[in-house]
Amino acid sequence: MKLYSYWRSTAAYRVRIALNLKGIDHETVPVDLVKDGGQQHAPDYVAKNPAHLVPSLELPDGTVLTQSLAIIDYLDALVPEPTLLVTDPVKRAKELAIAHTIAMDIHPVNNLRVVQHLSAEFGAAADAKAEWMRHWMKIGFDALSALLEPNKPFAAGENPSLADICIVAQMYNAHRWGLDLAPYARLLEIEDGCLALKPFADARPEAQPDAA
Amino acid sequence: MKLYSYWRSTAAYRVRIALNLKGIDHETVPVDLVKDGGQQHAPDYVAKNPAHLVPSLELPDGTVLTQSLAIIDYLDALVPEPTLLVTDPVKRAKELAIAHTIAMDIHPVNNLRVVQHLSAEFGAAADAKAEWMRHWMKIGFDALSALLEPNKPFAAGENPSLADICIVAQMYNAHRWGLDLAPYARLLEIEDGCLALKPFADARPEAQPDAA
Repeated sequence: MKLYSYWRSTAAYRVRIALNLKGIDHETVPVDLVKDGGQQHAPDYVAKNPAHLVPSLELPDGTVLTQSLAIIDYLDALVPEPTLLVTDPVKRAKELAIAHTIAMDIHPVNNLRVVQHLSAEFGAAADAKAEWMRHWMKIGFDALSALLEPNKPFAAGENPSLADICIVAQMYNAHRWGLDLAPYARLLEIEDGCLALKPFADARPEAQPDAA
Repeated sequence: MKLYSYWRSTAAYRVRIALNLKGIDHETVPVDLVKDGGQQHAPDYVAKNPAHLVPSLELPDGTVLTQSLAIIDYLDALVPEPTLLVTDPVKRAKELAIAHTIAMDIHPVNNLRVVQHLSAEFGAAADAKAEWMRHWMKIGFDALSALLEPNKPFAAGENPSLADICIVAQMYNAHRWGLDLAPYARLLEIEDGCLALKPFADARPEAQPDAA
């Protein structure tokens, strides 16, 4: 299968981790979100991903899946081990809540196109854009901290789950935009624990073929 | 169980529809997002929902679940019929992609707190805020239109799914903020078909005890 990815996209980063955890052979096709006014807007790519976003996963039969968490749900069904969500319904909902606090409350509001629109409509300068990023990360991380399982190696228990995948990817953005991480020792600990594992380390933005 | 809900919250609306589709008895506890500076910020509520958001679902044993799609995932496990997601992995990922296009690409960027922050930081007036709402809905609906199953009564097939739940709730906001819906005949058709069903109709904002 082919993963359409951009090295700095945290949504693509999530899928890269999941593919590695599952040991699924794939080809990475870079989509540069910045060059040429954004290659995600090229007609050939929009035919695959009508939202003009990365990631997209193209299956061998040509089917294209979009939306990072929907793609990961598919990968988890395709290759069940290691499982990315527990089966107990309450624990599973709690793992999903951690993942969704990042994927729904933080990441969409910090998306490239949102900060581009802030500049275009409200004249937000570089400083104001960085402040916007940190504002939503801080609010989200404060909520997140209350949802993490204490005294466990990973966010929701003994093994890396979808929750850890979303955390590790979001932490990349937190470092990138200079969020003060002193109040989030547990998140840093989870990040360290995950990045010590090859499937996570190999998925890092800096390890991608299109890293600049 | 108790659903902490605000009549106009489209995330709470999603959970109300799911509870009704599953026929699950519940009590609705209103959380007024506007009155008293926002009751979602009250310490008693934040102890349940550290993200200061609705909805929250409190189970009989006191466990509180947060994040609308995580809650719905739990309800789907608790009461499997009618199922809200198909089991075929590819079809399931496509249903999720429709749901996530709304829940991740549109709704978070249009959240009350985001437009409040736009006013506070960039002086956005009422007009600019409404324009912001419509901008992200239009982009999202354009993407969404390409993901819908054609020639089916519902968004992804013969029965209402999580995709329809998210669409119906988002359509409420589209009407509320005056998005031009002429280009989205299929979405209007799905909305009409769903709202003709009692579980959807009973979940409408206007039908809630706290509707103003």
